[in-house]
Amino acid sequence: MKLLEESIKNIKPLNEEFKKLAKERLDLQIKPLDSLGKLEDIAIQLSGVFQKQFVDINKKLILGFGADHGVFYENVSPCKRDVTKLQFSNFVTGGNGVKTISSFTNTDVWAIDVGIDCDEIIKGSFDEKIRKGTSNLRVGPAMTKDEAIKSLEIGIKYANKASLENYDLIGVGEMGICNTTPSTAIMCAFYDLKPQDITGMGCGLDNEGINRKINVIKDSLKVNSPINKDSIEILSKFGGFEIGAMAGVILGCAKNRKIVVLDGFISYAAYILAYNLNPLVKEYVISSHLSDEPASKMLLDKLNLSPLLNLNMKLGEGSGASIAFNIIEIANHTYKNMLTFDESNMENTHP
Amino acid sequence: MKLLEESIKNIKPLNEEFKKLAKERLDLQIKPLDSLGKLEDIAIQLSGVFQKQFVDINKKLILGFGADHGVFYENVSPCKRDVTKLQFSNFVTGGNGVKTISSFTNTDVWAIDVGIDCDEIIKGSFDEKIRKGTSNLRVGPAMTKDEAIKSLEIGIKYANKASLENYDLIGVGEMGICNTTPSTAIMCAFYDLKPQDITGMGCGLDNEGINRKINVIKDSLKVNSPINKDSIEILSKFGGFEIGAMAGVILGCAKNRKIVVLDGFISYAAYILAYNLNPLVKEYVISSHLSDEPASKMLLDKLNLSPLLNLNMKLGEGSGASIAFNIIEIANHTYKNMLTFDESNMENTHP
Repeated sequence: MKLLEESIKNIKPLNEEFKKLAKERLDLQIKPLDSLGKLEDIAIQLSGVFQKQFVDINKKLILGFGADHGVFYENVSPCKRDVTKLQFSNFVTGGNGVKTISSFTNTDVWAIDVGIDCDEIIKGSFDEKIRKGTSNLRVGPAMTKDEAIKSLEIGIKYANKASLENYDLIGVGEMGICNTTPSTAIMCAFYDLKPQDITGMGCGLDNEGINRKINVIKDSLKVNSPINKDSIEILSKFGGFEIGAMAGVILGCAKNRKIVVLDGFISYAAYILAYNLNPLVKEYVISSHLSDEPASKMLLDKLNLSPLLNLNMKLGEGSGASIAFNIIEIANHTYKNMLTFDESNMENTHP
Repeated sequence: MKLLEESIKNIKPLNEEFKKLAKERLDLQIKPLDSLGKLEDIAIQLSGVFQKQFVDINKKLILGFGADHGVFYENVSPCKRDVTKLQFSNFVTGGNGVKTISSFTNTDVWAIDVGIDCDEIIKGSFDEKIRKGTSNLRVGPAMTKDEAIKSLEIGIKYANKASLENYDLIGVGEMGICNTTPSTAIMCAFYDLKPQDITGMGCGLDNEGINRKINVIKDSLKVNSPINKDSIEILSKFGGFEIGAMAGVILGCAKNRKIVVLDGFISYAAYILAYNLNPLVKEYVISSHLSDEPASKMLLDKLNLSPLLNLNMKLGEGSGASIAFNIIEIANHTYKNMLTFDESNMENTHP
């Protein structure tokens, strides 16, 4: 609990002076004011996060957490349970979505097992298994409060490790069959949303399956009530271990003054948990892409996040975050290298 | 006229067999079906365009056309007229938006003068000047029909040249002070839209300026009526030379079986012109980003185009297209390198 409390307490706002310096330069560059939109926002954010006028982005990392879910046995995913383990292995060996994209964007990927339903340690991964999957949220809490804290602290631990190893852009990734179910439950619990309004197909449910999933989430909200809008309580009631760890990464990156990049739907749930522990995390976050899960647009609007990419992706893994790294680097490169009116001997034509 | 007619006539649909091969591989890759969204669409499109199962993307190019506009003297832009020339020079020397972004995305930029209001030839650019700026669309046609055809054919000429030089991804860029005015007029003319519903601030008009711009466009629609929904007629009535050239590039790329990437608002107008000469161009087009001009979302929905990026950019120049090249390369890389279930010794878990 101490690591969590200390981390939450030590998140500071961005440096306004450096943000101002960046904004001043952007306003002198040879373009209409604000015409590079979010590229300019990112440049300002980088200066505020790293407290420098000109930031060098060193290394980039996806932290990929794997875990299983007790709610799997409610038949809320068309995938088999061992897909979590099998696909998690590909975070190490390569060939899956996030590793393939990351080989293009020059991004490292770490695989951390926080709760996969298997006995062996997956070669090349970090073993932080809390338990071999959460309990079934339909019949009671997915985990204990201690386990919830532990999952958050694992995330913080890896954010700290990444920070020590000079990673500047850190994306949250996951692999956990049926983890759209706890994610949806978390969103319903925090925002009093109705499961039937925001539940999607996950990795490929048919309509009958979606209805089943809606009922499971409804039941989970009932059996776990009353629900305080408290991140640790909500995480413990709905899970999962990987979602808690991702929320921990968001907190840890903010504490370490690193950029943390959200991925898809599962990462939105993690962000909600982190934000409700300390809203300052928002200043360190970049939203990469609009997940194809149907509730995504509504949720991101509610969270006041505007993703860079709209690719209809719903893979998870950190795949969208890895693509966004490239856009962040373009924003930084453009801010640093585009000329000002003075530098190009042009008259400042800003109205 | 012959080059234009021949080019329009020789645009063929994508190769369905190669599209099918790509789709088959994508459906065997270790991910939920369709979960990479537009990245999968792009991979299929690349196979269909280049008629190969696996495409190597060679070189990437922005074709940047510069021209001035007679409507400038109606005070529809806060920028000075010579900004066209000055910023066009930066397409060669660097330091502007598109060149800076393109130095990150490893993209070449060609600058083609089709109508800048200056006597000298700008060093390092291609001289295809039709005239030193269009006529004022408020009082009559911006150009003759012969000039409209010439501007389209210049675009085709440079698409042909780029194709011969092995460019595979070609983006359309422009520099032309006040060219959101003719672009908006083109959109109104084709879709019977009201200028007050789609006119934006361009490079920084205040509200009074926007109202002035709306009235200028209204007058231009009146003075140039009746207006047939014919691309050459509409281009000649509203301009400009660079918009015609961009439309020519779109036609030329489709004819040469190359991918052509749209940029922002001005490129939407060029696309409408090209599409109305041959709707098959759509199969070769990728929409890069959602321009921050207010009508963009409505227009792209109407055109059935869904941009990859949402960056609130409104710079033009080809800057958004250059960023999108990166996403297209990621799509291609992922399609080629992500493993299938067989290759990774996993059971095909597709529902």
